Parts: sequence; structure tokens; C-alpha cells
Amino acid sequence: MSNTISERIEKLRALMAEKRYDAVIVPTGDYHMSEYTGDYFKCREFITGFTGSAGTAVIFREAQQTPHTDEIPETNRPVSGLWTDSRYFIQAKSQLKGTGLSLFKTGEPGTPSITEHLACYLGEGARVACDGRVISFDTFAQWYDFLEEYGIELDEQADLIGELWDITGKQAATDISEKANNGLIPRPPMPKSHAYEYDVRYAGTSRAGKLELLSRKIADKGAGAHLLTSLDDIAWLLNIRASDVHCNPVLLAYFLAEKDPDGWSYRLFADPDSIGTDLMQALLQDGVVLEPYDSIGSAMTNLSSRDLLLSASETNSYLYGLIPPSVYIIEDSNPTLMMKAVKNSVECKGARTAHLKDGIALTKFMYWLKTNAADSNIQITEISAAEKLYELRSGQENFMGNSFDPIIAYADHAAIVHYQATEETNVPLEPKGLVLCDTGGHYLEGTTDVTRTIALGPLTSEELRMSTAVLQGHIALASAVFPYGLNGANLDYLAHAPLWKLGKDYGHGTGHGVGHFLNVHEGPNYIHWTRNGNTGTTPPFEPGMITSCEPGYYEDGKFGIRHESLLLCVPYALSHETQTDEQSSEVSCNDANENSSSDLLCFEELTLVPFDLDTVDISVLNKQEKKFLNAYHKKIYAVISPFLTQDERDWLRQVCRPV
Amino acid sequence: MSNTISERIEKLRALMAEKRYDAVIVPTGDYHMSEYTGDYFKCREFITGFTGSAGTAVIFREAQQTPHTDEIPETNRPVSGLWTDSRYFIQAKSQLKGTGLSLFKTGEPGTPSITEHLACYLGEGARVACDGRVISFDTFAQWYDFLEEYGIELDEQADLIGELWDITGKQAATDISEKANNGLIPRPPMPKSHAYEYDVRYAGTSRAGKLELLSRKIADKGAGAHLLTSLDDIAWLLNIRASDVHCNPVLLAYFLAEKDPDGWSYRLFADPDSIGTDLMQALLQDGVVLEPYDSIGSAMTNLSSRDLLLSASETNSYLYGLIPPSVYIIEDSNPTLMMKAVKNSVECKGARTAHLKDGIALTKFMYWLKTNAADSNIQITEISAAEKLYELRSGQENFMGNSFDPIIAYADHAAIVHYQATEETNVPLEPKGLVLCDTGGHYLEGTTDVTRTIALGPLTSEELRMSTAVLQGHIALASAVFPYGLNGANLDYLAHAPLWKLGKDYGHGTGHGVGHFLNVHEGPNYIHWTRNGNTGTTPPFEPGMITSCEPGYYEDGKFGIRHESLLLCVPYALSHETQTDEQSSEVSCNDANENSSSDLLCFEELTLVPFDLDTVDISVLNKQEKKFLNAYHKKIYAVISPFLTQDERDWLRQVCRPV
Repeated sequence: MSNTISERIEKLRALMAEKRYDAVIVPTGDYHMSEYTGDYFKCREFITGFTGSAGTAVIFREAQQTPHTDEIPETNRPVSGLWTDSRYFIQAKSQLKGTGLSLFKTGEPGTPSITEHLACYLGEGARVACDGRVISFDTFAQWYDFLEEYGIELDEQADLIGELWDITGKQAATDISEKANNGLIPRPPMPKSHAYEYDVRYAGTSRAGKLELLSRKIADKGAGAHLLTSLDDIAWLLNIRASDVHCNPVLLAYFLAEKDPDGWSYRLFADPDSIGTDLMQALLQDGVVLEPYDSIGSAMTNLSSRDLLLSASETNSYLYGLIPPSVYIIEDSNPTLMMKAVKNSVECKGARTAHLKDGIALTKFMYWLKTNAADSNIQITEISAAEKLYELRSGQENFMGNSFDPIIAYADHAAIVHYQATEETNVPLEPKGLVLCDTGGHYLEGTTDVTRTIALGPLTSEELRMSTAVLQGHIALASAVFPYGLNGANLDYLAHAPLWKLGKDYGHGTGHGVGHFLNVHEGPNYIHWTRNGNTGTTPPFEPGMITSCEPGYYEDGKFGIRHESLLLCVPYALSHETQTDEQSSEVSCNDANENSSSDLLCFEELTLVPFDLDTVDISVLNKQEKKFLNAYHKKIYAVISPFLTQDERDWLRQVCRPV
Repeated sequence: MSNTISERIEKLRALMAEKRYDAVIVPTGDYHMSEYTGDYFKCREFITGFTGSAGTAVIFREAQQTPHTDEIPETNRPVSGLWTDSRYFIQAKSQLKGTGLSLFKTGEPGTPSITEHLACYLGEGARVACDGRVISFDTFAQWYDFLEEYGIELDEQADLIGELWDITGKQAATDISEKANNGLIPRPPMPKSHAYEYDVRYAGTSRAGKLELLSRKIADKGAGAHLLTSLDDIAWLLNIRASDVHCNPVLLAYFLAEKDPDGWSYRLFADPDSIGTDLMQALLQDGVVLEPYDSIGSAMTNLSSRDLLLSASETNSYLYGLIPPSVYIIEDSNPTLMMKAVKNSVECKGARTAHLKDGIALTKFMYWLKTNAADSNIQITEISAAEKLYELRSGQENFMGNSFDPIIAYADHAAIVHYQATEETNVPLEPKGLVLCDTGGHYLEGTTDVTRTIALGPLTSEELRMSTAVLQGHIALASAVFPYGLNGANLDYLAHAPLWKLGKDYGHGTGHGVGHFLNVHEGPNYIHWTRNGNTGTTPPFEPGMITSCEPGYYEDGKFGIRHESLLLCVPYALSHETQTDEQSSEVSCNDANENSSSDLLCFEELTLVPFDLDTVDISVLNKQEKKFLNAYHKKIYAVISPFLTQDERDWLRQVCRPV
């Protein structure tokens, strides 16, 4: 692998020399700022070999670039490299081996930003290439302004990797082996899947209703037009689904709304081959006209003068540059962002159904795993376990596929936060230690994302201790009660505290929003205290938001733990608390006075999969934690057991025993 | 009282008519944006009768102003009024009675801002008066810009209240009774107290050292000059103390630092009569030249062109306006803000000493209160209790006075968050219910601020239940362990959660910074989750910061509870936890790996006063809460008991019993 990558980088450097670029920035992205991209867009993976979902490469023309000032301490280290976050540190370190690329750990103290790094090694007059189509206008503007201060030019119309891949890839396609063609492989085609109507009985709100509300929100922001480029927003808005991105049921498309004297016109820019006649007709009936995907450029160029609303962090820089100067741009978040995040009652009900199905599949999976792990006749591996789970999910009605590639990570593999077993890394599960299972499914009724860390046999005292602390953090956050106004940064302490008190921590965020039969990562709800400076952009929790709760702990080379459920934000019913509490209470929800918060919120645990009590040191749990666990397991047994075999049911009763 | 106020307002309206103003804004403030002000500056109190420390009055020329549009719902209500926050709702309501002024509750939904309100009732061409010397430039700019949009002129050079008070007050001074002179009383003189050197053995850092560091920080911000107007910053920087503001040991002064070719020059603008010859000499030795207080204006007017650093939220608008346009203004927080907030080791040690003395006085006070409350021969009142406490504090070495007016509030009075007993409101304490004691002292070694809510006899179940919940919130916040980077907004959930889970809440912030023998309210550390949008301005906790922890609960007309201690932020020693924990632990502070946070912080409870266990329902406390209480009380008994009489000691042993 590393040889292949080195050869690609060598060819890239030749191209840079030919075109007089001193460095190239290669982000991870498609033209829509998607978190996950179709294979066509995997330029950063092509040139670095790193397969993670997030990361940006910077490659200098010279393998050993000399800094242009004396102030740089890291004079001798290779300067080309990859920036990625803590989820991928271990994976990136391993995948970059032998490529000559260094790992730059985003978020770690001392790690320079991409532009700081470029400014250290390049002087006045230097030229840096990047493809403006795969970065947002916000990012481009930030990079451009920074580099300009140092006299460094950033050319956003230089897609060197694409050029390399397109042209030499075509030659390569005529060869047979990757070896023979110097590591160049044909570039995959642009995604082109079949788009279909997402029935309103699952979506809850009709396309016409959504368009009507959107147009009002556009007008509220003082705009007469709106460009929408994020794929999940478009799919949500138009009640359509497709499979243009691996595990994300979206369609590659742009959407443009414009207010004419006669009312609003809506244009969908997408590959006509993806949209069947029926769907095209249905869209037309709601006033949505289909145009070819590539004609978005001319649509922007020809925009008549009006106020255009767009999200500068989600619109690619190239497209932004096409907007005529006569158009006044109103930069704000997409109105669909909050409309999509706050699930309607049909979506909430659907989410509960999806989680019941998912809970049945996963409970059966846990039974299978725990009862067979010790059986040497049945050799279970990370990959075969994932296959088994897929089979069990497939048995559920309306299952539409994985919501992300399953992470079944045994023992030390689980310390690689986004580990994905390959034929090379796959290992058999043994009757000891922990296996971390972070998986999710799409159902027509909703999307799931759940992690259970399961004991396959005896645990070390460290594994037990840390697994318990992580679960205490999960319980504390899932049990939060708070008035409207708090966001993830106000609550994240709860998930971390049991680890902090042991001097431990985890490096990733605690929670992300989840789509409704849409992307498993969805904004704007987010739980991460480091977002301090950004709390302005993380809105408060609202009833109907679905957010993951996934504290973890990772011991490099030893084990990894994560306990993740999806939480639905719901109004807090004081009466419930009173009923289940041993103590009598005079508080009533209707007791509205200056001191009582009538708008209290809490979380409902949507996920219905038992926590493996074999991973929990019950003796350290307090009363509230035990109460939470017992109520949760009681509910799971009640709703899941009817769908199990007798053996499974007997096992589940034991698994859900009160502690 | 209200008659007097009505008469004053009548006179003001005559003055407004004469000078053609349609409304006047009267903020609470001196020329230094101090939270508490000298009596000379109490214009808002003079014109409204409201004595709270925060609030802004708006008085229209017409008693019944008609809104200029139809959109206003509140057409018929009197429009002149006072804006204040939830701490003062009850007090303001009572003090405004009969004045014709309405109470506008800042922070409550539906309350208009001052400028929104003005724009509702005034039309194009209207003129609003205010005194630019008592509002910050930030505030003035915000008001001015808003009103300008509506064509309303804001005149910042119109000190109508001062005029009324100065002129007619002088006439009144010749009369005998307040009644006779139509409610006008002579204006108190400008504060003029004796300033003195604050010994470096208490300050920890010399004046020269502080000036040296300050000048470097000014240069770091790219400035060649710095205007400092906040009184506590000046006192801290120059190691001087005075008593120009009631309970705040500060000197009325301005400070200007300028970089000349020869180095830095420092000018202190203050009343020369306040500064003795010795102090003047000492200041001169460190390069600080004394100039008259009033000459700050000409100093600003004559500033030579250079980059001037100032805090626009702390510089009064009038002074800001005097700066020549040739001077480039760098708006940023004062460098002294963080220097002052993060206490040095001498200050931290001093704070512990001050709290030991304060703990002795308060423990003796608690003993006296609880043992005498039921004795009908000794009639204790709110005021006599405060006097007793002052006497006990005075018995401690280096006691320098109250750090704020004591709040001894019995029963329903305690629901008035900032209650201060007057001869009219004073009540005897009875042997039942709760008395809230929120008091503090200045010692040469540091400043204290402590609230204990004490049971004088039987409590209602509601009192017991709520007092326990408030204490649980206090304990949760005081027990927090967290890495560097979190601020008050990340932790405030802990203090509120036990109340929220009961459907209750309190309306004030949970914690504020505290000065070192300086102002009892000091920034920038602050604990309040509603500061979401502002978390950028609340910096993370740092070791050495002192912050109050004061959750509360108030039942209007019934009772009030607050449990407050001062917390010193300190490094978290993992080994401590290991020693006191029943469970064995392998964690060590030196175990630095990717997962262990080597920079963990926690809080040390500086305050050394027992919580009254008679106000706590022990049965609802969990193990951690009991552990906290027992360790805290054990420490108090150990350090306080040597200073008590035998009777007091026997009593304290019982009060500090393990639960």
C-alpha cells in the first residue's frame, strides 16, 4: 500500500513542478460538504492511503522543505502530512506508515493549523493549489486571508489530484494489475443511484408543507432566493431518498428556491437518470422542476439580482464564486437545519419503532455472541460477527441497510475509535475481554446508532473499572433534567466526570444529532464541552431532537469501551418522577410559580439494547444509577422479550435482572 | 418616602420640559462603571427611591405617555419605570410603591429593553437625556445606534438628576427638615477617603513588578498606551487601598500608562488630599506620578497619537469621547483583569488565613444564634444579629470591615434575595423556621463572602426538602473535577440539577469572582449557564481563581435558602482521592498517558463554617454527598475548635458530627 501511495505522491510532485505549485491542500469532501462522500470524491484517500472519514492532507513539492524562517523548531521533520482528529490518530498513524507523510493531530496542543504550517515553510510568492469545489466558502476565505498576509497565493481552481487520477487513471484502466500501472487506478464514476419518494406516512410532513414553511422562513430572513447544497437537507426537504453516498440515503443534488412575482419557484439540480418519471412528475406537482446536476453553475451565474440566502459553511467555494456581484448574499444557516433536527411526532413515533426492531436484532446478536464466544467449534471473527448482525437486522421489516460501516472491534482493536475490520486486521473473538460493537441501521421508520461493549469472558480489573465509569457517565447524561436554554456544552460535564475523577478521559465528542432515515451524523445538536467558544452555534436542546450519548474510554494496545444510546429530548413530566420515587412529593407539573420551571426537558433513551452487566462493577453504582439501570432493563425485557425464542428470552431475563 | 420621590420626579419633569427632553435615562453608576458607588453618585436612588445595587430608571416627561404606534399592547400602563434583575424584584416592587414608576423585570420573557421601550413611546425627533459619565462607551454606543434608527436623539451630556440635586439640593441644605424642602436633600460630597499602601507581604507582588508585567501585556496587545478606569484594577495594580466606595476598599482614580522613548510613564489621577506624602513618595519611586482627579479629561484630550488600549465596557462614554481622533483605540479587556483574578501564592495563603478568622467569628455567631434563639429574655432581631456578627468579626486581627452590607433575613424576608433589614422591616427572630445569613468581611489577608441558612427551630417539610436540594447542588458543584478549559457555563448544571429535578429553580447566577481585600464581586470568572452566548467572554477556570458557589431557593412570602462558600480553584491531586477512597486505585498523578488528564482541576472550599445539619434531610443524601459533608465538617472542627470556648467547642463537635 505505502509503495503505491509513494508513487502517487511522486507523480503528484511532478505535476506540481510542471504547474509551478509549491504545495497542494487535499481536503476530504464532495461538492456538498458532506461528511461521508462517494468514492468518486475520495481524492485525499487516493493520495494518502488514509481511509478515515475526516482529514486534510498538505503535500509540498519538495519532500524535505526548509522553513523560510529560523523560528521553526521542527526543521528536520518531513513536512508533508495529514491533519486528522483524535478518533483517527491510531488508524492514521498506521495507514501513513511508509508514505513519507506525517500525522498532525488536530486539537492537540502544539499542532499548527494547516495554514500556519504552510506559512512556516513557504515564503512570499509561493503558490498553493486546492480544489475550491470540495471546500466551503468559509474555509476558503479563512485560508486565503491567512496565506495572503504572508504573500502566499491560494489557487482554488487547481484540482491536481483529480487531474492525476482522471488522466493517468484512464491509462491505468487499460492495464490489469495495480502494480503494473504504478499504483494508479481508474477513478470511480460519479454516484448515480435510484432516487425514490419517501412516503409521507414515514416523513410526517408533506413535501408541499415543507416547501411552504421553507419559503416563509426564507422570507423571514429577508431573502428572495435560497441555495441549498447539503444533501441530507435536500433529501429531507423533498421527501426523497437515494443511495449516492455509502450508508447515507441521499441524492447528489442542488436545490434553488426563488421568489418570482407569481410566487416561489423551486429547482432541483440532479442527474435525470437517477429520478424516475413518477418521481419527476410528483416533484413537478409540488412545483419542483428538475434540471441537470451540472447546470447549477449556469443557474448561479445567471441569478437575477436579489437577496440570496445561503450557508457559507456548506456552499462550496467554487459555486460561491459564480454568484454575480449584483446579488446580495445573506449568510446564515439553512432554515432546513432546525426543521430537520427537531423531529415531528410521526418521526418520533417512527424512531421508537425503528429502535424496537433494532433492539430485537441486537438483543438476538448479543445472545448469539455471548453464548457462542466460548464455543471453539464456532469460530466467530470481527467480520463474521458483523455479518451475523447484518443478517439479524435484515430480518426486520423495512430494514434499509447499515447507517454506517459496523465497528466490531475486539480487545485492543477497540482502542482504535473508528476501527473497521479488514481481511488483514480481522481476528477471532476469544472467550475473554471486551468486544466493542458500534453499529446502526436504517429503517424506513428511522435511523439507529448504538454501541454496546460486551464481555466475552473474564475481564481485567482495569477493564471492569473503566467500563463502569463510562457507564456512570452515560447514565448521568441520559438522566439530565434541565430547562429550555441549555445546550450540549452545558451538559457534557456529566458524561466525562466519572472518568475525570479517575484522571482519565476520552478525546471525542459525547454526542451528535441523528437523521430520520438520513445521515447518522446530523447537526446542529452536539454535545462537546470544547465547543465553548462555539456555543453560539450549538442551539439549545428542543423536544424532538435526537442526540447520541456516547462516552468512551480507550487504552491504546489494550482495550476500548463505549456505551452509546440515542436520546430523544422530551418534556420532563414531574408527575412521573413523583410516581416512581419512593419519597412522596407535593410537586405537580401544574404548580406554576416563579420557582417552578414549567418548561423542563429530559431525555428518553430510544435505544432498547441491554447494557452487559458483566462489564459493570455494581458495587460502585449509587442508588440513582441502579434505579436507572433497573428501569431501563425492565423496559427492555417487557418490549423485546415477546419477539425472542424461549432460550433467548430466558437469557434476556437474566441479562435484565435488577441490580 | 414615596411622596418625596413623587415630588422629586415632578421637579425633574419641570426641568425636562424646560430643557426640551422627552425622557431621561438614569443608570446606576459612577464614572468608573463600579458595581457599587459612593453616595455622591446615587442619582438613580435619589430619583426612584430604589436602593438596590443594580437598576436603570427611564422617566418620561409625560406621566401618561401615549405610544406612537398602535402595535403596543401595554398602552395604558404607566410607562416610566425601573429595570432591575431578579435579585431585586421583590425589593423594587416594594420600594417603587406610590412613586408612579413601574417595575421592568430584566431577563424575564416579554420585558422590553430600555431602548425598545423608549422607541415604543417616543417618535422621530424626540430627545432623550443621559449622563455619559455614568455609562460605558459600549452601552452608550448600543443605545445611541438603536435610538438613531427611530430618529430619537440621545444626548449624553445631560445630567438632569445631578443638576436637580446639585442646585436645589444646595437650597435645601439651608432648610431643616426634608419635608420642608419638598423632598430635596443636599447631595453628598464626592468620596474622599484616606488611601494607604497595601503591604506587599499581603499583596504578594510588588507594585514595580505588577507595572513591569502590565507594560509588557500592553505592548503584547500592540498598544503604546493604556487607560485604566476600573477602581479595583487600579487599587490592585498599585497596591493601594482606600474607602471611597462603601464596603469596597478602593480609591476614586484613573490610571494612564504611556510608552515614551525613554520607557513607560505612569500617571495616577486622584484627589491629592486622599494620598499622603509618604504614599505619594512611594508611588513616585515606582515611577507613578500623581495628578488631580479632574485632570484626566485634559490628559485624554492631549493624548499624543498612539495606539491606546482600553476596555470599552469599563470606560465611561464621556471620557471616551474626549480621545482625539488621531489616537487609534484598541478595545480589549484590561490586562489587569486576569492578573487580578488569578491569585498568587501569597494571596491564596492569605485567603486561607482570612477564612479561618472568618470561620471562627461565624461559628461563634452560629453558636450564639442557635443557643439563644429560643430564649425570650434575649430578643434577637435581624439588625441586632448583624451587629453581633460584626462585633465577632471585629475581634479578629486585621479585620477591615464588612465586604458588603450584611443580609440577615428571617423567614419570608429571605425570599428577598438582596434583603437588607432597616428599622422599618426589622423583625425579631423566633425559635422556628430559617434565617439566611449572607455576610462577608475584609481582612488584610483577604475578603470573605459566605451564606449559611440556619434553622432556629422546627422547619416545615418544604423548608427541609428545599434546603437539602440546595445543599446537594452546592456539594455537586464544589466537588467538580475537570480539565483546564471548562468555564462556569460548563459546570452550572451541577448546582441547579437537584432543584430542576424537583421542578424548582433560582433566578440568580451561581457564582462570582471575589477580590483579594478588594471588591467582593470581581470578574471575569462567573458561573451561570444563561451566559451561553457569552461563554467566549467567561474564561476557563484557572488555579488561583476564587469563585463563590451559592445556589439558592426562594419561596416568595415564605422562606429563602442559600448555601454559599468561596471556592479556590486548585490542581486536582489524584493521590488524595486514592487515599481517602475506600477502593484501592492504581491511578497515579504521574501516570501521564493519552488518557490521563495531567492538568485536572478542582475546588478547595475556602469557607470554614459548618452547614447547619438541622436544615438537611440526611436520608436523601447519597454516599458521595455524605462523604463531602463529613470531610468538610471534620476539617472545620479540627481548625476552628482550638479558638472556641469549652461550650462552643462541645456544641461544634455535635454540629460537625458525621452523618
